[in-house]
Amino acid sequence: MTEFFDAPKIEYKGPTSQDPLSFRHYNANEIILGKPMKEWLKFSVCFWHTLTGGGGSDPFGDKTLQRPWEDDVREDPLALAKRRIDVLFEFLTKLGVEYYTFHDIDVAPTGNSLEEFQHNLAIIGDYLLEKQQQTGVKLLWGTQNLFTNPRYMNGAMTNPDVHVFCTAAAQIQTMMDLVHKLQGSHHVFWGGREGYQTLLNTDLKKECDHMAAMYRMAVAYKQKKGYTAKFLLEPKPREPTKHQYDYDAQTAMAFLHEYGLSEHFQLNIEPNHTTLAGHSSEHDIAIASAYNMLGSIDCNTGDPILGWDVDLFPMNVQETAAIMGVVIQQGGLSGGLNFDAKVRRESVDPIDLFYAHIGSMDCYALGLRKAAALHEQGVLRQMLQQRYLTWSEDMGQRIERGEATLEECAEYAKKKGEPKLISGRQELYEVIRNQNLYPTN
Amino acid sequence: MTEFFDAPKIEYKGPTSQDPLSFRHYNANEIILGKPMKEWLKFSVCFWHTLTGGGGSDPFGDKTLQRPWEDDVREDPLALAKRRIDVLFEFLTKLGVEYYTFHDIDVAPTGNSLEEFQHNLAIIGDYLLEKQQQTGVKLLWGTQNLFTNPRYMNGAMTNPDVHVFCTAAAQIQTMMDLVHKLQGSHHVFWGGREGYQTLLNTDLKKECDHMAAMYRMAVAYKQKKGYTAKFLLEPKPREPTKHQYDYDAQTAMAFLHEYGLSEHFQLNIEPNHTTLAGHSSEHDIAIASAYNMLGSIDCNTGDPILGWDVDLFPMNVQETAAIMGVVIQQGGLSGGLNFDAKVRRESVDPIDLFYAHIGSMDCYALGLRKAAALHEQGVLRQMLQQRYLTWSEDMGQRIERGEATLEECAEYAKKKGEPKLISGRQELYEVIRNQNLYPTN
Amino acid sequence: MTEFFDAPKIEYKGPTSQDPLSFRHYNANEIILGKPMKEWLKFSVCFWHTLTGGGGSDPFGDKTLQRPWEDDVREDPLALAKRRIDVLFEFLTKLGVEYYTFHDIDVAPTGNSLEEFQHNLAIIGDYLLEKQQQTGVKLLWGTQNLFTNPRYMNGAMTNPDVHVFCTAAAQIQTMMDLVHKLQGSHHVFWGGREGYQTLLNTDLKKECDHMAAMYRMAVAYKQKKGYTAKFLLEPKPREPTKHQYDYDAQTAMAFLHEYGLSEHFQLNIEPNHTTLAGHSSEHDIAIASAYNMLGSIDCNTGDPILGWDVDLFPMNVQETAAIMGVVIQQGGLSGGLNFDAKVRRESVDPIDLFYAHIGSMDCYALGLRKAAALHEQGVLRQMLQQRYLTWSEDMGQRIERGEATLEECAEYAKKKGEPKLISGRQELYEVIRNQNLYPTN
Amino acid sequence: MTEFFDAPKIEYKGPTSQDPLSFRHYNANEIILGKPMKEWLKFSVCFWHTLTGGGGSDPFGDKTLQRPWEDDVREDPLALAKRRIDVLFEFLTKLGVEYYTFHDIDVAPTGNSLEEFQHNLAIIGDYLLEKQQQTGVKLLWGTQNLFTNPRYMNGAMTNPDVHVFCTAAAQIQTMMDLVHKLQGSHHVFWGGREGYQTLLNTDLKKECDHMAAMYRMAVAYKQKKGYTAKFLLEPKPREPTKHQYDYDAQTAMAFLHEYGLSEHFQLNIEPNHTTLAGHSSEHDIAIASAYNMLGSIDCNTGDPILGWDVDLFPMNVQETAAIMGVVIQQGGLSGGLNFDAKVRRESVDPIDLFYAHIGSMDCYALGLRKAAALHEQGVLRQMLQQRYLTWSEDMGQRIERGEATLEECAEYAKKKGEPKLISGRQELYEVIRNQNLYPTN
Repeated sequence: MTEFFDAPKIEYKGPTSQDPLSFRHYNANEIILGKPMKEWLKFSVCFWHTLTGGGGSDPFGDKTLQRPWEDDVREDPLALAKRRIDVLFEFLTKLGVEYYTFHDIDVAPTGNSLEEFQHNLAIIGDYLLEKQQQTGVKLLWGTQNLFTNPRYMNGAMTNPDVHVFCTAAAQIQTMMDLVHKLQGSHHVFWGGREGYQTLLNTDLKKECDHMAAMYRMAVAYKQKKGYTAKFLLEPKPREPTKHQYDYDAQTAMAFLHEYGLSEHFQLNIEPNHTTLAGHSSEHDIAIASAYNMLGSIDCNTGDPILGWDVDLFPMNVQETAAIMGVVIQQGGLSGGLNFDAKVRRESVDPIDLFYAHIGSMDCYALGLRKAAALHEQGVLRQMLQQRYLTWSEDMGQRIERGEATLEECAEYAKKKGEPKLISGRQELYEVIRNQNLYPTN
Repeated sequence: MTEFFDAPKIEYKGPTSQDPLSFRHYNANEIILGKPMKEWLKFSVCFWHTLTGGGGSDPFGDKTLQRPWEDDVREDPLALAKRRIDVLFEFLTKLGVEYYTFHDIDVAPTGNSLEEFQHNLAIIGDYLLEKQQQTGVKLLWGTQNLFTNPRYMNGAMTNPDVHVFCTAAAQIQTMMDLVHKLQGSHHVFWGGREGYQTLLNTDLKKECDHMAAMYRMAVAYKQKKGYTAKFLLEPKPREPTKHQYDYDAQTAMAFLHEYGLSEHFQLNIEPNHTTLAGHSSEHDIAIASAYNMLGSIDCNTGDPILGWDVDLFPMNVQETAAIMGVVIQQGGLSGGLNFDAKVRRESVDPIDLFYAHIGSMDCYALGLRKAAALHEQGVLRQMLQQRYLTWSEDMGQRIERGEATLEECAEYAKKKGEPKLISGRQELYEVIRNQNLYPTN
Repeated sequence: MTEFFDAPKIEYKGPTSQDPLSFRHYNANEIILGKPMKEWLKFSVCFWHTLTGGGGSDPFGDKTLQRPWEDDVREDPLALAKRRIDVLFEFLTKLGVEYYTFHDIDVAPTGNSLEEFQHNLAIIGDYLLEKQQQTGVKLLWGTQNLFTNPRYMNGAMTNPDVHVFCTAAAQIQTMMDLVHKLQGSHHVFWGGREGYQTLLNTDLKKECDHMAAMYRMAVAYKQKKGYTAKFLLEPKPREPTKHQYDYDAQTAMAFLHEYGLSEHFQLNIEPNHTTLAGHSSEHDIAIASAYNMLGSIDCNTGDPILGWDVDLFPMNVQETAAIMGVVIQQGGLSGGLNFDAKVRRESVDPIDLFYAHIGSMDCYALGLRKAAALHEQGVLRQMLQQRYLTWSEDMGQRIERGEATLEECAEYAKKKGEPKLISGRQELYEVIRNQNLYPTN
Repeated sequence: MTEFFDAPKIEYKGPTSQDPLSFRHYNANEIILGKPMKEWLKFSVCFWHTLTGGGGSDPFGDKTLQRPWEDDVREDPLALAKRRIDVLFEFLTKLGVEYYTFHDIDVAPTGNSLEEFQHNLAIIGDYLLEKQQQTGVKLLWGTQNLFTNPRYMNGAMTNPDVHVFCTAAAQIQTMMDLVHKLQGSHHVFWGGREGYQTLLNTDLKKECDHMAAMYRMAVAYKQKKGYTAKFLLEPKPREPTKHQYDYDAQTAMAFLHEYGLSEHFQLNIEPNHTTLAGHSSEHDIAIASAYNMLGSIDCNTGDPILGWDVDLFPMNVQETAAIMGVVIQQGGLSGGLNFDAKVRRESVDPIDLFYAHIGSMDCYALGLRKAAALHEQGVLRQMLQQRYLTWSEDMGQRIERGEATLEECAEYAKKKGEPKLISGRQELYEVIRNQNLYPTN
């Protein structure tokens, strides 16, 4: 079989390698903190940005990414769909990535009706299963696209028209069946059009009630069928919609609590969405982890000066080290690290897909190495323990256990007099982080 | 008694009045939608920005607001405290505002120890009660300041040192007693230092657990004492802290749910904080109201191009009309509309306090008039009902009542075929809003 | 001839009109401050957003605006192009708008080569001229699109490849010829791809030198041909590019000065771009006007919470009143007020184009009325004159004329002692603005 | 003499040092690209944040930094001023920093009048000179504080009152004399209050004219006296003022051009201000350098999620490497790298000043090492040269020299046909940056 990419199988060549078609830091089977790197870093590549998506188009420019493998099949939608799948699996195999993710409309032609789409999806489902079996590549998660089709312009689950809501239900059901068939471990829900463009024309309570109704039906269907893929909500504050109901991790958690859905969902956090919500990139990962809600990560990144979703490949080791620090602390992810990232529209050559993924896998691998070294060295952890030490003592323990009263605390304060000011030492913490990141000149 | 302000009792003179020391729109006893304006608009003035606070200082500049009434009592803290109270009550009386709010440290000298502060607070409490009785002015809410004193630099309820936590508990207890004594209807908790400056030195789960422990003790104390002031959390995303745990309305709601505290708290929303969190100014008010969590409003406003808390006096009628629209829809506020606003540091004359408050009261009064007219006219409401009409029909009702299944919805969608695109009509909604705001040339 | 829009000629019916297909405030021939409204408000409609553009597509969604007039000519590019022109001129005529604007690629099919495009443009140019003569509609400005075609992905005037630069030169020359032929009064240059995505791969000085070289050649060509259309630069901070060289008004002015081009250009300011640059919406209009650089205005608006270009129809009277205040002060615009605005992608009906344009024309018309009333009343102007009064006196005049020295000023200060604090009166200014905006309840 | 700091002279101990009171990367006399590190990195410490300033106060909190060296001299302003100078010089000497910077009001008591202030400044000037001579420490730049005193609340050079303008002139003259006396190499002008809080009360053209008048008088005074300190403008977009006239580098350059002042000023760029203006941190440094306007750098940094000036110590090596890359390219700075940074208000111990400065000096030193390695390796430079190669060829050269015409370029484009798409390779550039930053695991 002719290959689509003029690139070799990517090998680990160590940090001094100058070859951009090699890994400098990612060594899949090397053991880090008791597990192979590839278990800490269950990378996946998304179909969307890598093979379909806008092809480099943006609101001011046409598609720039003309892919050679599409030339002779562009007129036959099913052939084109299969060709793209072939390309993806070659790409995954060469990269050594063992997982992929997709939206329903990424992989199969949507045709002229829901039925036609579902028919195509069935054919493609078989093809994907076959490729999985051939290559050992697995499905990390699948999701239904409820935002591209014009019918969803006013929302899918939150559409003012019950007819649209039901169409969304049909897509969800079909995709739940398909994820089960492909043995995907997770199922993602992203509500890009669930929100409002203006409060003037919106009944936000009614819309959120409807969204909850859909999730309840999906949970019921899952239980009835005995499906096992875990449900993940993916928060995003805005874009395409002005305000999205799943704004950030804690907003999504408020929603799940409000409607009694907390035990059925975890979160898929994308740092790019987190920064758009006004947080530092690791905030939502940290807060979701703290409440046992961190299921998976879309590991692309944003640009702090841009107010839209840029889906950059992660290339910042300080950020990946912080993220992997949280992952280490919670003992790993049930999901993985999905590259929901796109090459720049100016990066028009297929080989740029390799530079981008290799560079980012290395960036996460090095982040893991840094976080593991910090973890093993233990200095920061000890500084933290020391910082909260009084909470391990009697009064602290009684408060934590809920045994103390306000009066008792007040009494304690009066007895002890004015507290001493204890330095927060932010600069020293930062210096130690730099020692970890830059152990040499 | 000599007056502190060279200003008359402010009267309603109607919209054509050119006198900036008159109301053009606020007519306290005029009936709007069945209630006097002053019941819809339970204005209160905060002690903080109006009489103490930074006096116009900012991070780059010294205090500019030199108040004549402080000249001869500056050396005697208790006399100064009482003088300021006299000034406030004169101001309230002249404005016709019936409520005030305060932090503990606004009204009484903090002295050199907690005991001394509590002693001063007791004296001042008596004085406030006396003034309330003389004037009929009431306490809307009180709150403890847990952020100004250096001891709280690393947090109060979330401090790594249990000693500081207990000191905060003492302030809370004292303030709960005082609010009860002064018959305040609400008690506010604002966690300006409850958050983190850097995740490096922070155990955020532990800190949130401690915050919840404090609230539980406060609830227990309230129940034990039979106090009736309602508890309000006031969200803010950041400033002074880089990230505050009560980021916005829904983050606060997530927290309350997570720790089983939802039934004991409502929210005090400040639009200025809402815009700092990246939402439109009325978003948090609307979402809090939707979930029955809107208790009170701090009605100052922000500047969308500034990334810090500017506490401007509200002067934008489109904004106040939107806010009063929500208030009308929920039938009023249990709390009120508190001016947690400050005159600009360049507005150095005492008379500027009048221009500012009168202008903002008029701005809210006109917003109420606009919202009431829109409510009575009913066009927007009908457009909204029409928009969601299918949800009143059979399928919609079955979904809303939780009786439908995913399969059934999917079946419905297939039967009905592709939904039609229905215009969201945003521009027409906006045109109708402008008809409401500008009924004349 | 069949009409494309099911809408009448739009008439002025006065502020109490409830008919959304009438003007409430825009009365074209009514005299305001000595000139008909339509001279103050030289509205124009852009071809781009109204008839071509993305048709409601966004980065997450497909085209939603399916226009009936395209149905039977979609396969014939020239027929489609002419049909759209017919639609535009019907729309302009019904609205009573006398100007239009376009990019070269909006109006003519681009074909398969530059030659083919230029050939099509020649045909379309004749057609436009004919329509202008039939209807009396005029061309406000034309511009070349140097950002949509993939060839411009790395910049047009600032492309690293001289070949692309020259292709841009060809488009500019052709468009200069066409604007001259159509007697357009202005020619706009917008550099959406002139900037950088990353400094790593960019020589920014070289790129700016090349941009200046292009402008110099355009100036030379204009002079050689005796063309009279005035050149306008249109600043924008970012999007599609991460950083654009014409960031905002003053950055563009710095560039023009740096390269000796100031006398050949004015600016076309879009408030939506201004807010993206971190300024209040009227800032760039005010600063450009102050330095005699305000040539024309793209009068769409942004949303302060969104970090991308939303091109909303202006519906905020406070903003339009501020803008028209600047225009009145400088005696009018040589250009006009161009609606570079798009209906929301959810506003799928052709009639929404009417609601949007009528609403915005009324918004500007009311803004003009408010600004004119303020101007005639004179209170704010007098307050301003009073504020700067000392500069009309001796010392102030000597400094303004450049006759004073530092020593002399220092001497003056010492003699006069400490200056008094004079209130800036921001709140009172705002109250007076509200009196102007809301003269009735 | 007793020492103020319980810290040794800080030594270079190499990258594996775990001692936070040692340098890991800064080795003052090590030669990098032909010059000692200390010449590339002319660090200076500012008096303001380090010894006076707000002492950890913020808009919501009181001073936290209680310095032991102030205890016994707090009542005697001149003694306190001298003590702080002693502390600074001990600090500089222990750190091995050879430069300092100050505002006039940082170092001398302001007294009750301008005369008293000038008298104190004369005494302190002598003291500073003496300390400089004793220690070899030099003055990098001085500046007048025209923003803290209430008299400047409405601006200094742009005040509506000529009396305030003249008071500012007096401060400038005095400071020019003092900088000359202390042989400072530069003189900085920062216009924190030169701007507007609201356009309603502002004549921005008049205000900018006055600012220019002041600068012209300062230039004239400098020339008359034969002073040699170079003038630097320091841009900042906002804070304390809503909009500042020297918004960013190019806005300042526009102003200087507009008023014919370009040859008399360069810029002092602070990356923290640059990010507040919506640029990436190195943008203003790069653009100023491109136009030969980069004179000096205030090397503190901001936090991209905070909308105010945080003046963090720089701890991000990727940022310092980018900045030092620009500095290397222009062959060094006439000014230096001034720490206008403050320890967090929670970092209350004097030793935190050491952790912060050492960590940041190391961060810049490592950034210099990385940038020098990249420079010597040359890969990125070659990629850049390759990228712009066509501009070295005939057509490119003719355009650059201004010899080509628009027609000729258009002709060239037609002859060559459609340009090929050439990848911008952003991801590969980023990978190479990471190879440079992280040469090991």
